[in-house]
Order: sequence, then structure tokens, then C-alpha cells
Amino acid sequence: MIDENIFQDRALDACGKGLGVFVPGQTLGEVRGLGWNLLHENVSLPVAVLQAERIEHNLRWMQTFIARYGVLLAPHGKTTMSPALFRRQLDAGAWGITLATAPQVQAAYRHGVRRILMANQLVGRGNMALISRLLEDTAFTFYCIVDSAANVAQLGEYFAGRGQRLHVLLELGAAGGRTGVRDAAQEQAVLAELARWPHALKLCGIELYEGVLKAEADIRALLRHAVGRLKALARVGELRDGPVLLSGAGSAWFDVVAEEFAGIDIGQPLQVVLRPGCYLTHDVGIYRDAHTRIQTHNPVAREMQASLLPALQVWAYVQSLPEPGLAIVGLGKRDAAFDAGLPLPALHHRPGAACPHAAPAHWQLSAMMDQHAFMRIGTQDDVQVGDLVAFDISHPCLTFDKWRQLALIDADYNVIDLIETCF
Amino acid sequence: MIDENIFQDRALDACGKGLGVFVPGQTLGEVRGLGWNLLHENVSLPVAVLQAERIEHNLRWMQTFIARYGVLLAPHGKTTMSPALFRRQLDAGAWGITLATAPQVQAAYRHGVRRILMANQLVGRGNMALISRLLEDTAFTFYCIVDSAANVAQLGEYFAGRGQRLHVLLELGAAGGRTGVRDAAQEQAVLAELARWPHALKLCGIELYEGVLKAEADIRALLRHAVGRLKALARVGELRDGPVLLSGAGSAWFDVVAEEFAGIDIGQPLQVVLRPGCYLTHDVGIYRDAHTRIQTHNPVAREMQASLLPALQVWAYVQSLPEPGLAIVGLGKRDAAFDAGLPLPALHHRPGAACPHAAPAHWQLSAMMDQHAFMRIGTQDDVQVGDLVAFDISHPCLTFDKWRQLALIDADYNVIDLIETCF
Repeated sequence: MIDENIFQDRALDACGKGLGVFVPGQTLGEVRGLGWNLLHENVSLPVAVLQAERIEHNLRWMQTFIARYGVLLAPHGKTTMSPALFRRQLDAGAWGITLATAPQVQAAYRHGVRRILMANQLVGRGNMALISRLLEDTAFTFYCIVDSAANVAQLGEYFAGRGQRLHVLLELGAAGGRTGVRDAAQEQAVLAELARWPHALKLCGIELYEGVLKAEADIRALLRHAVGRLKALARVGELRDGPVLLSGAGSAWFDVVAEEFAGIDIGQPLQVVLRPGCYLTHDVGIYRDAHTRIQTHNPVAREMQASLLPALQVWAYVQSLPEPGLAIVGLGKRDAAFDAGLPLPALHHRPGAACPHAAPAHWQLSAMMDQHAFMRIGTQDDVQVGDLVAFDISHPCLTFDKWRQLALIDADYNVIDLIETCF
Repeated sequence: MIDENIFQDRALDACGKGLGVFVPGQTLGEVRGLGWNLLHENVSLPVAVLQAERIEHNLRWMQTFIARYGVLLAPHGKTTMSPALFRRQLDAGAWGITLATAPQVQAAYRHGVRRILMANQLVGRGNMALISRLLEDTAFTFYCIVDSAANVAQLGEYFAGRGQRLHVLLELGAAGGRTGVRDAAQEQAVLAELARWPHALKLCGIELYEGVLKAEADIRALLRHAVGRLKALARVGELRDGPVLLSGAGSAWFDVVAEEFAGIDIGQPLQVVLRPGCYLTHDVGIYRDAHTRIQTHNPVAREMQASLLPALQVWAYVQSLPEPGLAIVGLGKRDAAFDAGLPLPALHHRPGAACPHAAPAHWQLSAMMDQHAFMRIGTQDDVQVGDLVAFDISHPCLTFDKWRQLALIDADYNVIDLIETCF
């Protein structure tokens, strides 16, 4: 579906971080041949690394889970914004890619993705213009969501003017949540406005994002409400020419969404699309916590036994040991997410040693600045300036967006590829 | 010094955000001719914009301030990582550019910067390799800092092996601070190790970062300590072949550093180098607060009357109005800093209106997610889906790094150039 050469032929970023020495003009396809190894210090730190075997494991895990429920997977691409990872997700069986903004959609399209669910409103002429241009390709399938008559009117006018027809999903929201219609009156207003633009807008189903809710009972109630509304819309003929879509699921509650949505019957063909994004790299913070619940409660996940594995780390140097118990590390807010828990020291490696060791559990970051982290250590710990520390992270989305490329490594810490991002 | 064509000939980012429609292959030099205007919605939002006139004002302001003290300016480039802005800073009279990491140094070098102070330790073979390659250019002047014998030994061995000589500054730190030697014993250990590598390492002066301290008295004490240590080093002949450097000053206390460092006499030629980074765009948060103090207390700044002006905004659409008093805005943690205060609504513009109006003071962001912000508004406010809101920001560093290009706009909101970044 996506041509591998798109990635292999690209020149390495001569101004990039987390890279080794290369000759300007060398390409991504040549990276493996450069022989960069993390432990041999061939790469500038800090560097963000993806563990290839774990990525493959997570890809398979999610696709198996999805298949067991007979639903479809449109991984949220905003997490990684890495077309090379989109390709792996599509190759593994994903139905399409989910994205959040018009420029993200454009970036994915330009890398060969041809079925995209934009789980967001398309607002503003500048953004509509980007999507309109992509829709000139009739092989491109695109959905976005609507939750207000005002937005529907703007979309209707714009796409009618372009002689194009936009596929939209009605977004259902929850009181106190984010976007999405809250009640029957708002829904009716959206439907009434949609009825004014039959040639420019096509209602294809219902979307929601349950992740704004915290309690499972509230989430299940929202999901059941969505099923009820979809059946009602189908009954009154609002969804005449299929396929009809029903889509939910961020990265934390995809199991519950699968349980509620799988196998429902609305009296016409239905595609249930789940949109988790963070499963690919997982983490040791918010998403590990979420997955612990899934492993405990979801029967399919329980049967599968193996769970998702954290596959994203950031490596950095111990830069200074100015006071007892304090190591300053060359890792900053420019390099890793810090909004959902600070990075956690995972491995410690001294140059020249055969392999890294687990970092002591008492090593902890106490603060981060733009380019530095403060790591609390024991006063007697064997730490030296120039030692490498690998950090696990919480919140992959805000780690990926610090990097224009991440190093894909094998089990021996060889850099076997670079994964570029499009933020 | 930096060739303008480096920027003008670059192709526009076909996968970028905050851009209008263009034909792939069009260059930065063609942007002005595309006729993009923010108010006419020719650009995809969110977009980060730099106000050209304010940038010019701030450039002149800082260069005037620096000139009044007879010191030198090496703006901290890590703030913007925008070589086109480095060029403006150098053209306006800056002595060099300060950077924080080896890849940042490489990026600036590749864009023509030939005098760089890396206000950070150079740690690890991967990073030393990048710098070593740049030092093959004898027209390149480079300094980094040292604060441990261990790092000095590693640098000495590496650069001796390369037959190169690295210029280093001794970093003085403060108890409870970040990097930098804390006491005479640490300083002596560094000097002793430096003495072992006379052909590979050259001590050129002293550096400090006063920004880790909060109280002016503590800062002045650290600055005076640095002057004392520099005089002592000069006296004992540690700084034989000049030029000698003395460098301090982040963006918050540059006035105090200028006051303490200007005009000191160490008995040999001395260059005092200040390193503020955020003055170029300023902000309405942490740096406005800092500048209020400067305007009040520093006699030169008081005389100059005009102060630094915030020049960086992020514009976004009102995307949904799902509940009374709540607007969901298409602006997220992917688009603006959120670690030093959330963005502040500054302007409100309705498409079709002649110009934006000041946003009501009661509009406030209450939360941000990756791609969305929650804006609290009055229940009776005249707000519509599709309205544009311009946000002032706090912490420019962590706003710049969300963007591969920022739009430079004139007073009529025309996009007159794009400023690329190298994060």
C-alpha cells in the first residue's frame, strides 16, 4: 500500500539530533550499513529509540485483539506521526489511519495512506482547502466528524462550492467532556443542517471519544448511547448508502469499546472502527496503568496472556556530578514528555562495558529543564560523567513530537533504521 | 556572514503545519508571493506567527542595551533554533551564537554560523565526533564548558587522539544549582586535569548560568565570585594566550550580569559575553515578569524607555461550542508551551471582519490536551465555531520546538516569510 522507497531514498537530516556521523546526502536506506551502535557511542545523545522486536510484538498483539472482536483498526497516527510506522500498521492489517488535523492528514496522504479517519472537526477555510485538494484523488477515502450546525453549514458551503462531497460522522460527546453533541437538540440541529447539503456532505455514521471520561460505567453508558443513536439513525434512513461507520476508542479503553461495539446489528452493513494510538510503543506510565486494567478485566486480553510492551526509550549522558546524590543528565523537555510523569531511569551503561544493567530503583528524576534533567542518586552509587542512562517514558505522543527521527534498534542496540516523523 | 540563499532556496514543507496551499517544490523565497493572509484564512490553523516589526524592535533593543555596557552578545540559539533568526541576530551585531548541544552546534554551523559558545558540557564520543568534524574548519571558533575532571580527561583523550585543540571555559555553579564546580576542590581538580592536556584543551575563561538562582543577592554573589576567580586564574597565568572570555546571563537576569561584568579589569584583554535567548520573541509570561524587574531597576533599560515586546503568538480556530461557557479550540500541547502557564487569549477575529479585536480578559484556557484546548468564556459571549483566536504564550523555547516553520507576518497579518527551525 505504501511504497517502501518513500522512506529508503530520503536523505539523512544533516541538522538532526540523535544521529551518528554520516556524509551529507546519505539516505535512510544506508543507515543500517553505517554500523551505529548505542553502546559503542556511535550516536549523539540524547536519542529516542524504538525497540524493533517490541514494536513487532505490539503490532501483532493489537491486530490479534482486534481480529478476535471482528472489528477494524484505524490506529491514531497523531501519536507517532511516523509514516513508516503507519506503513507497518497497515501492512499488519489496519483498516486505515486516524489523524487529528488537516496537515496531519496531508502528511499521511503524501506518504501513501489512502484511508483516513480524521477524528476531529474540520474547521476553517485554510484547513478545508488542504482536504479539498486531497479529495481530488478519487482513490482517497476520508471521514471527519461534526458536532455543530455552524461547522456543518461552513463545510456544506465550502465543499458545495468545490463540487465535492465530504464524508462526515456525527460526534457524540459527554457532559463535561470535550467536543461532541451533548443532547438531542444539538444532534437535531446538526442533522437538520446536514439535510441542507445532501450533495456536499454525507453522513456515514457516529464517532465518539470515550477517553474524556474516567469511570467505566460512564464510558459504557456513552457507548450504549452511541449504539442506540446509530440504530435510530439507521431506522429513519439517515444512513442510506453504506458503509456505515461506528468508531470509538483511544488508547486506554479500547477493550471496553470492543466489548460494547462488536457484533451489534443496526439492520444494515456496519464497520466498527477502533482508534488506539499508543499501543505501538506503549509506555511505563499512563498507558501501562490502563493496560493493567485491560489485562485484568478483558477476557480476550487475558487469554492472549502476553501484554503490550514498552518499546520507546530516550538515552542520555550523565553530564555532571556536581553534588553528592545529584547527577545532571543531558535530557530535557526538548527530548521527552514531562506532562504525565517524568522519564524513569531504566538502564545504566558504562562505555566499554559489555551491556547495560538495570538502573537502581532509587534513581529518579526530580526536575527537567529545556536541555537538562536532575537525577537523584545515592551518594555511594557508582556513577561517572559519561555514563549512559536509558529512560522509559510516560506519554509517547509528547515524546515522539520532540524528534524528527527516532532510531530503530535491534536487541544488540544496533541502529537498524531511522523512523522519521512529520510534526 | 550567513548567505541569504540558504533560506530562500529551500523547498516548502509539503507535510508541514501552519501553511497555506502551495505547489510542492515552491520555495521559501516564493512565500511572500503566495499572498497568504491570516485574517483571510489562507493558512491552516493552528499556526505560530512571529510579528516582524516586533522582532526588529527587540533585536535593536537588546543590541543597544549590550552596546551601552560595552559587552558582547551571543544570543542563546536553543530558544528558537532558527538559523534565519541567528542570521538577523548576527547581522544586528551579535558576536556569536550560544547553543546547548552538539547537534544544535552542527545545525548552526551548517547554516553559516562560525562563532559558537556551547554553554554546556560536551559529553560522549558521539557528541565529540560531531564537534571534531566541525573543528576541521579552521575558520570555526567554538567554546564549550567543563566542570569535572572526568569530563576534562575524556575530552583531552578524544581531542588529543584527533590532533585537535578544544577551547573550554570553566563553569562555576552554585550549591543547589545545576552544573558547574561548587568549590575550590572541584575547581582545582578540573585545572589539574586540564594541565595534563595542554595540546588538546585550552582554558579560555569562565562561564556561569545565574538563572538557576532565584534571589538577586545570590546572583550578584555568584557573579562576583566569578570575577574573583577569573582574576585569580589570570594572575597565576592559567589564561596566557587570549582572548579571555567571561560569560553569563540567560534571559531573565542579563541586566544584573551586565552591571557586574562590564568594565572589569583582569590585567589582560577580556571579552564579556552575555547569552540571553528569549529577548527576540519575548513573551507574556515568565520573561515579561523578568523584564518588568529589569525595566524598573536597571538604569540603562530605564533610560531606553521602550521595553521588549512579545512577538510570538499561536493562532487557532474555535472548533466546538458544546456547552455554555466552554469553547474547544484547535490548539494543543503539540502547538504551544504549557509548562510555564497556559497560552493566553489575546485577539478574537471573525472571518470576514476587517480586523481582530482584543479578546475579553475573562477568556482563559483551563486545560490543554495534545491537540485541543479548553477555553472558558462567558455564556453570553459572541463566539462562533470558525472564529480565530490568537494566543500569547509563556516560554518561547517550548513553543518554537513545536514548529518546523513559523510564519513571519507584517502588521496587516500578511505572511511575508517562513522561519524554519532545526530541532
